[in-house]
Amino acid sequence: MRLGRLAVALCGLAGPAQAASEPSLQAILDHAPAADWRRIDPARSLYLTVDGGPVVIELAPDFAPRAVANILRLARSGYFDTAAVVRVQDNYVVQWADPAAEDPHPSKDEHPRPLGDAAVTLPMEVDRPASGLEITDLPDADPYASRVGLSDGFPIAGTAGRVGLAHCYGMVGVGRDTAPDSGNGSELYAVIGQSPRALDGNVTLVGRVVWGMERLSSLKRGTGPLGFYTDRSMDVPVGPVRIGSDVPVAARLDLRALRTDSASYRAVLAYERGPRSAWFVHMPGHVGLCEMPLPVRKAS
Amino acid sequence: MRLGRLAVALCGLAGPAQAASEPSLQAILDHAPAADWRRIDPARSLYLTVDGGPVVIELAPDFAPRAVANILRLARSGYFDTAAVVRVQDNYVVQWADPAAEDPHPSKDEHPRPLGDAAVTLPMEVDRPASGLEITDLPDADPYASRVGLSDGFPIAGTAGRVGLAHCYGMVGVGRDTAPDSGNGSELYAVIGQSPRALDGNVTLVGRVVWGMERLSSLKRGTGPLGFYTDRSMDVPVGPVRIGSDVPVAARLDLRALRTDSASYRAVLAYERGPRSAWFVHMPGHVGLCEMPLPVRKAS
Repeated sequence: MRLGRLAVALCGLAGPAQAASEPSLQAILDHAPAADWRRIDPARSLYLTVDGGPVVIELAPDFAPRAVANILRLARSGYFDTAAVVRVQDNYVVQWADPAAEDPHPSKDEHPRPLGDAAVTLPMEVDRPASGLEITDLPDADPYASRVGLSDGFPIAGTAGRVGLAHCYGMVGVGRDTAPDSGNGSELYAVIGQSPRALDGNVTLVGRVVWGMERLSSLKRGTGPLGFYTDRSMDVPVGPVRIGSDVPVAARLDLRALRTDSASYRAVLAYERGPRSAWFVHMPGHVGLCEMPLPVRKAS
Repeated sequence: MRLGRLAVALCGLAGPAQAASEPSLQAILDHAPAADWRRIDPARSLYLTVDGGPVVIELAPDFAPRAVANILRLARSGYFDTAAVVRVQDNYVVQWADPAAEDPHPSKDEHPRPLGDAAVTLPMEVDRPASGLEITDLPDADPYASRVGLSDGFPIAGTAGRVGLAHCYGMVGVGRDTAPDSGNGSELYAVIGQSPRALDGNVTLVGRVVWGMERLSSLKRGTGPLGFYTDRSMDVPVGPVRIGSDVPVAARLDLRALRTDSASYRAVLAYERGPRSAWFVHMPGHVGLCEMPLPVRKAS
């Protein structure tokens, strides 16, 4: 079971067993009916290999259809197999790319990999009509948007009529240069710190890390400007990278995410706002968008 | 220069030089007069040693006088010199303590260190009157509190009349068991992910990591419940731990923080809300409490 913030005990000991009458996030998940869990779709999952283990990203074609299609095209062509983490900026992002396309400049006999039949430029995809989406609205104020909630497991922000993915922990986006259409998905980042929500509307978000996030978040921070690694020997390979449905079934992770439109998720929301367990002497009464967890587990 | 989130370029290249007329966070800092920087006071700083380098915590006696006094007492007695990180929960906290006081149970010949003349229990210190504090209020809505801002470099949340420290990235708090007075400062944690604001009002916060945060945030995540290390060999020593004023002057870091009640910090606030640099096609127009950076630099 991997959760954003399952438990709150801050003591050295495990803490006392909870009485049956006390709310518990684990109890909500333990009692969630099978129908409240959905299978993470291998056809829109990206498997990276970091430090010998898998990192799984669930892509969001409902929000960024063109960028997701381009990324799937690049992944299927093997483009990412030589990609590496080249930047880790503390409390911000980890970013991976073709090292030969990066500063510090590669040696003369290295050349950036061509993108093949993938697009080199793409319009940004930062919001879409809210209609047609299942949305679980959150009741509390957000500093940045008049409407926040969850849709298909993703944090969203926007207005009554239009919403887009929001920069919460673990969200994955498309690096770009100053030109808004310069991001094509060949360079991706994941949020590893406090939600940089000022990026909402400025970069195409394409999905979320749903497994193995700790393999990215614990990487050594870069010491160059913006957290770039200053020495190519620090680069951390992320390949091989495969689309989930191209991974042999035996090697796939059968991941299930709690449906954010389910009664169980509404119970999670109620728990997050309080009442919570007896450890809490002050109930928060509210919850922020990026403090809402997405429970993901391996199917047993 | 160490900043929460100094720059936003998400491209592989450094991006074009900014025109002189464009706002830049770096330019604000470069032009901040000396009077807008304050010296981090060594007498209320805690120097940890992690992975061979310093982690500096600025303590907040204005908000948690009893806990800070207890921690200084413990530090001066050498209590923390054998302490170690025993827990790293992704997107939540890193926590250090006396390993002999932790699960998994130590071997029979290990005994938890006595606290000496430090208190074993302490009342929680989670808020105080707002009067008497310099507060820079933030203008945007917060999900959790009717009033948010910065005071003496620390993020605060509360009401018009009472405020307390808020659980933002890098904030340091006092681990406790279920009993509210069970935290005494012998076990401390730092926030390494999205702000767990539900903890506000439930734990005594005592300060903020102002230098070397990446030494804590990049530690290997624990695989036990709540991110505890399952094997004592994984523990990461944090000692020696010294009060800054007990560190030989030659070994101290002469750190300066931008005053959060200065005109320069108000310029930072304006920058964070926008307008920003030309990279941004959509200006945020707002900023969340825990997205506000605290610029800290070494004196040159």
